[in-house]
Amino acid sequence: MGMVGGGPDAFIGAVHRMAANLDGKIELVCGAFSRSADKSRQMSRQLALAPGRCYADYKQMFEQESWLPADQRMEFVSIVTPNHLHFEVAKLALEAGFHVLCDKPATLTLDEARQLAEIRQQSGCLYALTHTYTGYPMVVAARELVARGELGRIRKVVVEYHQGWLADTNASLGKQAAWRLDPAQAGVSCCMADIGVHAANLAEFICNDEIEQLSADLGASAGRVLDDDGVVMLRFAGGARGLLSASQIAVGEENDLRIRVYGEKASLDWSQQEPNSLRLMHANKPLEILRTATPQAAALGGITRTPPGHPEGYLEAFANLYRQFAEQVEARRKQGLPGKNTLPGIREALRGMAFIETVVAASASQQKWHPL
Amino acid sequence: MGMVGGGPDAFIGAVHRMAANLDGKIELVCGAFSRSADKSRQMSRQLALAPGRCYADYKQMFEQESWLPADQRMEFVSIVTPNHLHFEVAKLALEAGFHVLCDKPATLTLDEARQLAEIRQQSGCLYALTHTYTGYPMVVAARELVARGELGRIRKVVVEYHQGWLADTNASLGKQAAWRLDPAQAGVSCCMADIGVHAANLAEFICNDEIEQLSADLGASAGRVLDDDGVVMLRFAGGARGLLSASQIAVGEENDLRIRVYGEKASLDWSQQEPNSLRLMHANKPLEILRTATPQAAALGGITRTPPGHPEGYLEAFANLYRQFAEQVEARRKQGLPGKNTLPGIREALRGMAFIETVVAASASQQKWHPL
Amino acid sequence: MGMVGGGPDAFIGAVHRMAANLDGKIELVCGAFSRSADKSRQMSRQLALAPGRCYADYKQMFEQESWLPADQRMEFVSIVTPNHLHFEVAKLALEAGFHVLCDKPATLTLDEARQLAEIRQQSGCLYALTHTYTGYPMVVAARELVARGELGRIRKVVVEYHQGWLADTNASLGKQAAWRLDPAQAGVSCCMADIGVHAANLAEFICNDEIEQLSADLGASAGRVLDDDGVVMLRFAGGARGLLSASQIAVGEENDLRIRVYGEKASLDWSQQEPNSLRLMHANKPLEILRTATPQAAALGGITRTPPGHPEGYLEAFANLYRQFAEQVEARRKQGLPGKNTLPGIREALRGMAFIETVVAASASQQKWHPL
Amino acid sequence: MGMVGGGPDAFIGAVHRMAANLDGKIELVCGAFSRSADKSRQMSRQLALAPGRCYADYKQMFEQESWLPADQRMEFVSIVTPNHLHFEVAKLALEAGFHVLCDKPATLTLDEARQLAEIRQQSGCLYALTHTYTGYPMVVAARELVARGELGRIRKVVVEYHQGWLADTNASLGKQAAWRLDPAQAGVSCCMADIGVHAANLAEFICNDEIEQLSADLGASAGRVLDDDGVVMLRFAGGARGLLSASQIAVGEENDLRIRVYGEKASLDWSQQEPNSLRLMHANKPLEILRTATPQAAALGGITRTPPGHPEGYLEAFANLYRQFAEQVEARRKQGLPGKNTLPGIREALRGMAFIETVVAASASQQKWHPL
Repeated sequence: MGMVGGGPDAFIGAVHRMAANLDGKIELVCGAFSRSADKSRQMSRQLALAPGRCYADYKQMFEQESWLPADQRMEFVSIVTPNHLHFEVAKLALEAGFHVLCDKPATLTLDEARQLAEIRQQSGCLYALTHTYTGYPMVVAARELVARGELGRIRKVVVEYHQGWLADTNASLGKQAAWRLDPAQAGVSCCMADIGVHAANLAEFICNDEIEQLSADLGASAGRVLDDDGVVMLRFAGGARGLLSASQIAVGEENDLRIRVYGEKASLDWSQQEPNSLRLMHANKPLEILRTATPQAAALGGITRTPPGHPEGYLEAFANLYRQFAEQVEARRKQGLPGKNTLPGIREALRGMAFIETVVAASASQQKWHPL
Repeated sequence: MGMVGGGPDAFIGAVHRMAANLDGKIELVCGAFSRSADKSRQMSRQLALAPGRCYADYKQMFEQESWLPADQRMEFVSIVTPNHLHFEVAKLALEAGFHVLCDKPATLTLDEARQLAEIRQQSGCLYALTHTYTGYPMVVAARELVARGELGRIRKVVVEYHQGWLADTNASLGKQAAWRLDPAQAGVSCCMADIGVHAANLAEFICNDEIEQLSADLGASAGRVLDDDGVVMLRFAGGARGLLSASQIAVGEENDLRIRVYGEKASLDWSQQEPNSLRLMHANKPLEILRTATPQAAALGGITRTPPGHPEGYLEAFANLYRQFAEQVEARRKQGLPGKNTLPGIREALRGMAFIETVVAASASQQKWHPL
Repeated sequence: MGMVGGGPDAFIGAVHRMAANLDGKIELVCGAFSRSADKSRQMSRQLALAPGRCYADYKQMFEQESWLPADQRMEFVSIVTPNHLHFEVAKLALEAGFHVLCDKPATLTLDEARQLAEIRQQSGCLYALTHTYTGYPMVVAARELVARGELGRIRKVVVEYHQGWLADTNASLGKQAAWRLDPAQAGVSCCMADIGVHAANLAEFICNDEIEQLSADLGASAGRVLDDDGVVMLRFAGGARGLLSASQIAVGEENDLRIRVYGEKASLDWSQQEPNSLRLMHANKPLEILRTATPQAAALGGITRTPPGHPEGYLEAFANLYRQFAEQVEARRKQGLPGKNTLPGIREALRGMAFIETVVAASASQQKWHPL
Repeated sequence: MGMVGGGPDAFIGAVHRMAANLDGKIELVCGAFSRSADKSRQMSRQLALAPGRCYADYKQMFEQESWLPADQRMEFVSIVTPNHLHFEVAKLALEAGFHVLCDKPATLTLDEARQLAEIRQQSGCLYALTHTYTGYPMVVAARELVARGELGRIRKVVVEYHQGWLADTNASLGKQAAWRLDPAQAGVSCCMADIGVHAANLAEFICNDEIEQLSADLGASAGRVLDDDGVVMLRFAGGARGLLSASQIAVGEENDLRIRVYGEKASLDWSQQEPNSLRLMHANKPLEILRTATPQAAALGGITRTPPGHPEGYLEAFANLYRQFAEQVEARRKQGLPGKNTLPGIREALRGMAFIETVVAASASQQKWHPL
């Protein structure tokens, strides 16, 4: 694969590389890691890329890689730039005939996402979006339990994503904070675009349902243009009521993503910070804790790499997305049928951008409900 | 004390009696336990009341107890009837000059609550409302931490109260369910009047702040007139944003009341099902678990009866309200100054009824925000 | 009931009184609360005892109460003195024809316990020992699960009881510590006599089995004569292997009593600090959490007073022993058959004293195994 | 690196490969994966090794790799065979001048371990042993806290390692079980050699102390020659008392390794199944939860790859050993000074084998204490 973004200071680029490395099946062969040529070369050396495979920019990379023989050029590109470049880079990559794996959110606006869907359609290439949390085996198990009807009709969904790292409005919060709080790089939203959209995606993924209407109240701490906190009331197409809370100013919270899904027959509860357990609640029997890599969980799908009780985490979840994408790419190369997978793609790109724009508009409105 | 309600099948009446018994300071001397004279006598025998102190109804009780010498008659009345009788009983008791301890909600309507406030004012009697959860020592500690400014300005409040016992709409759910789902006995709301109001009270109690505006979405399962689930967006007078979720159809949940309060400097997290711990989150140091009966917690107030690690629970929290009320009554009898206490009273009665009526109206409205 | 011990500074006396009060069925009518007549009178006034029912000492109390008419005198005595008086007080009470409920350990030596068993036999009176932790409903449920064979043959038992309150050897630790560390008042052991014996009792209670052999290593911190920490290897008559750890110097632990029982088919795990949950582990299905007051738990016995999710604690567990004892006393009074109960009695008194003496001897020995 | 063992059915070989891959710094260049040439070739193809780098056996591998130019041959060998081959393979590798990273236990007997120490000394090569759990960042933090004196003098250590996967003595338990229960392949012990030794290592690692004496009681379920469960009393050189429990028949336990260390000033508690938290208990302040990747934890050392709240697990801990070993190898290659590291090596190899042999001998003995 090739990589755009992910220079020396980048957090998510390093995560993508570790995720790609884990199974030893994906080789990083080229990159355009930074707008700064120096930083890009520095990264390239650090990663021991072959000479000539570090490019000045992504346009050059797509062009030159296209000229290489099929068995030498990158097969897909991993996009890990700040949000405002996602669309442009993905567009060019698809137009150049490369499969795309892109960090979320897919684009800066819903309009861009619609264009991207069009472009992908015409390119015939694969496109996947790293909604990381859908890679956790117990999240896949949760989705499967709902799909099998184990919970009955879903009545209520509570999803929360609370972090505290932007709590201090006085401190200089570093590069990671700066671009997320800058409308030019992050779009119309900080908190909802960065993490709220993960929460919405997780709810739709597990319930295999769509948010149909929402009402929102976002807030920005003193001196900020974009939201750093918000609450949202949800109504799902399938009839469930729900709520979503997201925050980057919840002092002391680390990465507290949790979802509870209440059905007519049973309910489930999953927390990202203890990802290897899934709580199953029933009306007439004891609470059950379903655990990663047990036979019961294995039967519900989800990729695992260790036996029960040997914890897996965030990098493994991320690697599950890479593994599935690599399998799709390989199937395409071999002209075989792609296997079943749970990878988020263009559909989730559109849903995500619609969520972000609607939630921002809803918060500014005195009208209660807004269709999504 | 005397008791109105709390017959042989009643849940909350038995709880009140155990709470009153615990410290051995309050004696139950009379009662009108049931509309059925048989059941009332049965209860009276079971409780070994003195002959002649089991009354046919509460009117008779207030009248006849008034005629007894001051050192023999009941000093206060505990009201544990279904909701629709709370106002009438409390009114008569206050007018007869008896102090009142009433189960919540205080009345069936906000209008009744306003009348009650007036009556209490004129009576000069004491009035307290058993918002049980404010009796837990770690809830009192949480309030004190906020009051001392340990959290800084509050930015966000998340409060949830989820139960599953009304989930099955087909089953006959027994007496406890029947009256709560009947508008004639329960008023305009089931879920919000039964438990949502506890959640709202807990948030206002801990933050020492008021909900200023809200937006709500309630729901009733098939065949029900009153709500059995709902979500509410909150805005507090002090500037905090919040959300409240309550449900009686959350399959598998027992009595899952939890509150998180996020401030500018620190945050706290308390769960009723593990009431002896209070999680304190800070920006720049490890999470702390404050525990009941430790010196650190003791310094924050809150009544405890056992050393650290010897768990206390719901009955002890309830008993803390009774103990404080008994101390108020004793201070009044001795014409002394009443000590500091955290007992909910008429103010909370008014707030609670306003919350219930506003949340029901807000849910039916297409307008987003509703003042409270 | 009457009470011996439990003066103004006593911890366990107050606990016994609250436990006796909770259900409103037991009345404290007399007492000899302290060696100090002043303190005893102070306690008596505080408890509003009838005049003349506060006695100078327990001998006087037993004598004078015997002279009262049957419907006025105390029916049983609750003994809550320091350990060294348990035997003497219980002996006199039984000889005077009073039923006895005694705080543990039953006596100061195994020899005394044997004498006591003899005396009780001759008296025909009831005798119970407050091994509190057997009063928790989930402990009763655990015992029942084992008895029903749900776990299969027991293979391993791990029981721990860790506290930290005696950790500081420099500090003056107050009255509670002083008598426990004084051989004249506490006997041959501090830690094992105070809490280790609870752990041993809990293991034998749940497994319905006996420790047959043990090997021990106790320790005393600088300046102490009696043990404040120890580890013990166990072999049960039924073939299980086990270990017991107890400590009063485990800095930061509150009252951390936990037992795990591993059987051939299933296992269980219970912690006193979260007493309303019982973890059930199975070979081929998810972990289950059995919860107090649910129908599943109710079917296994155990007394509860609140619905699921309304936590019960230490005082309720203690009250369960009192309730069962009161029922035994009442059945005896009415010459009826006593109902089934799980009250610890003389058998547990003998087992407990044998455990304490054996573990102390084993620790001092170079021989590995010691019969119990 | 090269690999010996780790064929298609092997669990731990795959783990080692993922751990080596994670950071993208270590390349697997050759292997002798199985006694079966077919299986070895199958593995080689699966891993896309260069032709000619899959060897028939490890002797051939060491010989032929030696002949390659320094910049082409493997720099170190990873040994992941069953236990009985560890010594022979490590010996030959060291004698051929290759650094060795070996799965634990280091050898089959203490005598072999002593020989190995001698051989390593003469070879001048690096040797490391994958006691995985020392790779967890919170374990490194725990060791550092003890080293800094934050706990004061250690008084008591409780370490447990409970699994249930060998509980069913009737079932055919597969290849992983078969060799561990076979004395010819596993040595004198199953449970203690497989997991008990991890527990002992963890205790010595965190406390930076040595077990000086022990007393043990091991057991084997019906039909088994080697132990599958055991309890051990410990005395440490530094004066602490301790106990160790290990089991492979604890039905329902997954990989429940937990250690508690009680000092004079503070205590700590770590569980492998929730590895990103470290509980710190103090005498006079609230319990603290120290979390991976927070600034407080980072200051205590320990390698992390994600921000707080993004869980890391077993593979990351394993990768931390590989990363440290790769850094040692690189420093050696560059003739630089090796950095500080916490890698277990020959010393731990000797301690581990001494533990295993002593614990087995102690269990068979009627003498209480056995030096280690």
